[in-house]
Amino acid sequence: MSEQKLKSRREFIRLAGMASIGLGAAACAANVAPLPPTTTPASPDSMAAMTPAPAATMVDMDTMHEAGVKKFLDNIGKDARFFGNKLEPKVVNGVKEFTLTCSEIQWDAGGGAMADAMAYNGTVPGPEIRVTEGDAVRVIVKNDMKRQSTSVHFHGQAVPNNMDGVPFITQPPIKPGQSFTYEFTVKNVGSSMYHSHHNSAEQVTRGLLGAFIVDRKDKAKDPAYDSDYTLILNDGVGGFTFNGKGFPYTQPIAARLGEKIRIRYMNEGLMIHPMHLHGLEQLVFAADGWNLPNPYYCDTINIAPGQRFDVIVTAHTAGVWAFHCHILNHAESSNGMFGMVTAVIVK
Amino acid sequence: MSEQKLKSRREFIRLAGMASIGLGAAACAANVAPLPPTTTPASPDSMAAMTPAPAATMVDMDTMHEAGVKKFLDNIGKDARFFGNKLEPKVVNGVKEFTLTCSEIQWDAGGGAMADAMAYNGTVPGPEIRVTEGDAVRVIVKNDMKRQSTSVHFHGQAVPNNMDGVPFITQPPIKPGQSFTYEFTVKNVGSSMYHSHHNSAEQVTRGLLGAFIVDRKDKAKDPAYDSDYTLILNDGVGGFTFNGKGFPYTQPIAARLGEKIRIRYMNEGLMIHPMHLHGLEQLVFAADGWNLPNPYYCDTINIAPGQRFDVIVTAHTAGVWAFHCHILNHAESSNGMFGMVTAVIVK
Amino acid sequence: MSEQKLKSRREFIRLAGMASIGLGAAACAANVAPLPPTTTPASPDSMAAMTPAPAATMVDMDTMHEAGVKKFLDNIGKDARFFGNKLEPKVVNGVKEFTLTCSEIQWDAGGGAMADAMAYNGTVPGPEIRVTEGDAVRVIVKNDMKRQSTSVHFHGQAVPNNMDGVPFITQPPIKPGQSFTYEFTVKNVGSSMYHSHHNSAEQVTRGLLGAFIVDRKDKAKDPAYDSDYTLILNDGVGGFTFNGKGFPYTQPIAARLGEKIRIRYMNEGLMIHPMHLHGLEQLVFAADGWNLPNPYYCDTINIAPGQRFDVIVTAHTAGVWAFHCHILNHAESSNGMFGMVTAVIVK
Repeated sequence: MSEQKLKSRREFIRLAGMASIGLGAAACAANVAPLPPTTTPASPDSMAAMTPAPAATMVDMDTMHEAGVKKFLDNIGKDARFFGNKLEPKVVNGVKEFTLTCSEIQWDAGGGAMADAMAYNGTVPGPEIRVTEGDAVRVIVKNDMKRQSTSVHFHGQAVPNNMDGVPFITQPPIKPGQSFTYEFTVKNVGSSMYHSHHNSAEQVTRGLLGAFIVDRKDKAKDPAYDSDYTLILNDGVGGFTFNGKGFPYTQPIAARLGEKIRIRYMNEGLMIHPMHLHGLEQLVFAADGWNLPNPYYCDTINIAPGQRFDVIVTAHTAGVWAFHCHILNHAESSNGMFGMVTAVIVK
Repeated sequence: MSEQKLKSRREFIRLAGMASIGLGAAACAANVAPLPPTTTPASPDSMAAMTPAPAATMVDMDTMHEAGVKKFLDNIGKDARFFGNKLEPKVVNGVKEFTLTCSEIQWDAGGGAMADAMAYNGTVPGPEIRVTEGDAVRVIVKNDMKRQSTSVHFHGQAVPNNMDGVPFITQPPIKPGQSFTYEFTVKNVGSSMYHSHHNSAEQVTRGLLGAFIVDRKDKAKDPAYDSDYTLILNDGVGGFTFNGKGFPYTQPIAARLGEKIRIRYMNEGLMIHPMHLHGLEQLVFAADGWNLPNPYYCDTINIAPGQRFDVIVTAHTAGVWAFHCHILNHAESSNGMFGMVTAVIVK
Repeated sequence: MSEQKLKSRREFIRLAGMASIGLGAAACAANVAPLPPTTTPASPDSMAAMTPAPAATMVDMDTMHEAGVKKFLDNIGKDARFFGNKLEPKVVNGVKEFTLTCSEIQWDAGGGAMADAMAYNGTVPGPEIRVTEGDAVRVIVKNDMKRQSTSVHFHGQAVPNNMDGVPFITQPPIKPGQSFTYEFTVKNVGSSMYHSHHNSAEQVTRGLLGAFIVDRKDKAKDPAYDSDYTLILNDGVGGFTFNGKGFPYTQPIAARLGEKIRIRYMNEGLMIHPMHLHGLEQLVFAADGWNLPNPYYCDTINIAPGQRFDVIVTAHTAGVWAFHCHILNHAESSNGMFGMVTAVIVK
């Protein structure tokens, strides 16, 4: 089966499956908040893979699985933004100043099936904000959305109450066309997040979320590592995604033999996601930014909505190691792997 | 929009949304056990907030959010039972004797939308039973329900087998009109629960549950704390609730600056609830009543059905700190925050 | 009500309830992957218990609960395979060689309601493979299924990449009629699993899964124990099951007073299962095969898909102790206990 034929077949399945997505994935399994009727449901290619397909022969099934893997391998290195979407600050009188602009966009979780999204600076997730412990930080939030007010909560950061981002409690909502400036000195180290705290069951599931990472001044307090990756787990707009993309449009972590990799899991969805890495054990050393008194090993770490966990993976064995959510219907269907699947590739 | 108009609008939405509650919240998301046809489904105001609303303008949305927050703030201190529903024992020959009467009631999770419930002593949850390590305890359970037998299991307490509350294994069920007396010496310290262990997927989700707390004799074995709160997490009768109430009818924890607050989470529902507190970190020090060998910090703690976790929160910064389940559709909709939301207010 | 009458009544309820299983249990609550139309949904007796029954009188309800408990107690010792389904190796030049044959079978989760399954060596779960740290192991996998290719992943074992079982990444899929031989030296100790890694959301939920247990050479590194049980938690074919069976067709753990029991939990389903044991505390000492630096006590341990936890239970008090998933609608309905329920019986 040619790539072209395969694509149109998948397109057919995607369209044929919409009714059952309505009943199955959106209304039930994904536990997604009901959306207002003025918007259309997310329908990326990857979600299509969750729906009952016309009975495929065994040969079809294998062909489709193979095509997905090939697409994933072909796509390596072609999405620099997947792990590299970082927001550079402007330094103003010693304050690191970041600007986030909210807008309604079409988001492509991969394969060109667009979904109605809300985004910071045009991407889902928004760009990573990265600062250092003790930094003075200013985040200017501009609301360019047409229909909804918003606000930003720095999840995991202890900020003054008036910077906490809860409308009608700590601030007025930021109406369309308005801005709001958050300013605080960074106290908490490690893996935090920023996301909408207004109509959040819709706004966060549609994409108003991002990583807020704080480097420690004294790096000796953390375990040693050579590289540092953030994986934002999501089950909102775009279906089951890592950093906004579903397999085969995810990017792998590439490591040299012996490399110590720090992985920061952040769950911005509505469901748990137990992350399983093949072949290489995970040393869990931090929860929600705080180092654990006693790190422990596992191969499958369960991350609930709102939680972050940091792990160290030592790339002790060469190979392409599958890396996926172990709720199997978040990761594979009879049409092949999809959604929350990527790999650690050790050379 | 006036408060009156708002109320009738919400009433309209509540009624309009019933069909989709039937498909969405009750049958799917909430994972609630099917109920016999002789009873009607729970339909509090708070559940209405989960259903798709007629397309609201942005102004409507903000107005409704603001109204909810105002109602929450206005309601502070007006429900002494929320944290203060405790059952005083009668001391009989050195035995602390408690009486629990089961009955079918209408339960108001807030806002006056009543739901068919089963209750101990007329409230959901039932009143807190509080004793001390080593106490001799007698709990007389009277079944005043019309239609169902019942039993009580002391979840987290190591009792003699014939006091364990499992019908046809450790005792006969307590039929309507009958009583059963549980007697045991309290061995386990910390945060336990009592609840029905007969037809429990219905009886517990309808409200036959409560806290059973055991104070330690040697308080030096626990971390120091100034105040002590129990939060029973539930997704049964009344929708998503803390101590039987959904936002804006929940009560905040009020603390002075510097206060050390002990919070006892107890999950009596059918779903996980990752509890996120803004601004103030949580020191997790006990699981199911047993102190952890190494307490750890987090801002979001995941509690599964049947689990209890005890945390210490130090009120180091003044403000109104949002405190909610981080499965966002357990806590907010386009109509405003609802369900599993409260606050810690530090002055 | 006689046993015969009861049985036909339950049969009636089972059939009457199929439509709502389609909407409720299969499509929504169980979060089960959609199945191809060429197969029929699982419909064991135990699943029937999840569906709304015709309004039962209180007497009916108690009668049905009692019948279930009696059936469980009568069935003790009558299913030696429940805890004893082990695969003996053939030793070939010092290599422990196991053969797994995949086939499509009808699986009885109890009570005779058969479900379309896929099985290793004819059982769900497949037989336990048990080896010792450092062993050279060979697992010959024969695919005798008619319609689907497959592969095997040794979940929790660090193997050479080409033995990792991911089709099109580490090997070609094993087509119907073909075989594949996995060979590796066992490095990881403790509780691992083996299961399909091809079309896994269907193949694993249909039954292609089993325990892979590695005994430690230096047993002094583990806590002391007298007996050793594996409980595979599942919510796939056959409904909510332990080791492939739903209550009342599960088997209890029988212990003498003072016995130290090691229990290995393995979640092979798509949902979390918080396991609650009455009367006897659980010392959690290992996660995914790695011993924890600081074991801790609990009475309810939450196990997510793909995770394994090992606990020690000391049988300090005599009695029949209920032992079940605490998501109550995985364990009980108005027709009685079902699914994920068993007991620890201490004499």
